[in-house]
Amino acid sequence: MRMRRLKWAHDFLLEQEHLIQDPIALKGTWKKVLGKDQLRVEIGCGKGDYWVQMGKRYPEFGWIGIEKNESAAALAMRNYVEHGSESHMRFIYNDAAQIDEWFEDGEVDVIHLNFSDPWPKTRYHKRRLSHANFLGKYKQILCDGGQIIMKTDNSDLFEFSLLQFQNEGFELSEVSVDFRRVEHHEDVITEYEKRFMELGQPIYRAVFTLHK
Amino acid sequence: MRMRRLKWAHDFLLEQEHLIQDPIALKGTWKKVLGKDQLRVEIGCGKGDYWVQMGKRYPEFGWIGIEKNESAAALAMRNYVEHGSESHMRFIYNDAAQIDEWFEDGEVDVIHLNFSDPWPKTRYHKRRLSHANFLGKYKQILCDGGQIIMKTDNSDLFEFSLLQFQNEGFELSEVSVDFRRVEHHEDVITEYEKRFMELGQPIYRAVFTLHK
Repeated sequence: MRMRRLKWAHDFLLEQEHLIQDPIALKGTWKKVLGKDQLRVEIGCGKGDYWVQMGKRYPEFGWIGIEKNESAAALAMRNYVEHGSESHMRFIYNDAAQIDEWFEDGEVDVIHLNFSDPWPKTRYHKRRLSHANFLGKYKQILCDGGQIIMKTDNSDLFEFSLLQFQNEGFELSEVSVDFRRVEHHEDVITEYEKRFMELGQPIYRAVFTLHK
Repeated sequence: MRMRRLKWAHDFLLEQEHLIQDPIALKGTWKKVLGKDQLRVEIGCGKGDYWVQMGKRYPEFGWIGIEKNESAAALAMRNYVEHGSESHMRFIYNDAAQIDEWFEDGEVDVIHLNFSDPWPKTRYHKRRLSHANFLGKYKQILCDGGQIIMKTDNSDLFEFSLLQFQNEGFELSEVSVDFRRVEHHEDVITEYEKRFMELGQPIYRAVFTLHK
């Protein structure tokens, strides 16, 4: 999502204890640091509504939020602090293109991709978070049986992703072309998602499983 | 689609030269009989709008329509006769559950499934034309590289089918969660499909490829 630049973002982010300045240093130790057996990572978490709410709802997992936009990252961290700075959660303000340097092979259990930037122009498709280039990195850091859970309002991105995931050897475990036509209490609805629902826009969702 | 029973259907169907009374007798000879190198089969073709129009538009292929409902079959055949009884087309009024007895292994190039009955109740899912039981038969009669092209307005059937096809080893080659958001001049829009489009109902479509 496009957003205006926040002047206070830079200094605010530097002060945050649970923002990981050097994620490489924690490689292989995330579960131990968070005291959890399972690690869930949201890539491109924007203002952090999903990451914060899911983290609070499922404290049995470790939750990592990743966002590369400075202003969005600052809003996510403010959101996190306002909701109690839960100790089983961490934040990475950085570009997920380096994600394979931050996590050990097989260290991650679940990756969430929510309403990722669709990069509509063909020449930018390789920037999509579900492009084969990214999927190769996810495969490395995911455990055997690990999953990627994707939601989007963008039909073009969804179709593209179904093919990319298949071609990279992921199994399609669940798929919905209108996820909210039935209630899913297990999954947080952010304000962002709610807006699409109010417009009658279907929410597409798929769960992909990796067999190593 | 539900339809009222037509009294004239039975006798009318008996008179039709291009309605194949005994499809088993043609097993292995369809391409020769139709004088074409490629065979396309629509299963559950209803009143035959798609079969008739696609047959006329693509006379380079042999086209077989299959429908088990007597009244729908009669309307399809009337439709066919009114459009010139093209000699590269045939019709089978019978239950596609026996389709593997009518075609030789690898004899069919493309199977079309258009707006198949969604059989919403779980206990009837095995009647769905994209249920694994049917897919096993399609795999037998399809050639290497053969394709199944599916269109539906039913989200539940579509989601179910994506998983069934994957689990039976088909490759997802194309997928669209809103096929008509761009124009597809290569594909006929029947009155039936048009009605869904006018209601703003997205048309779901997928192409599955078999690698033998």
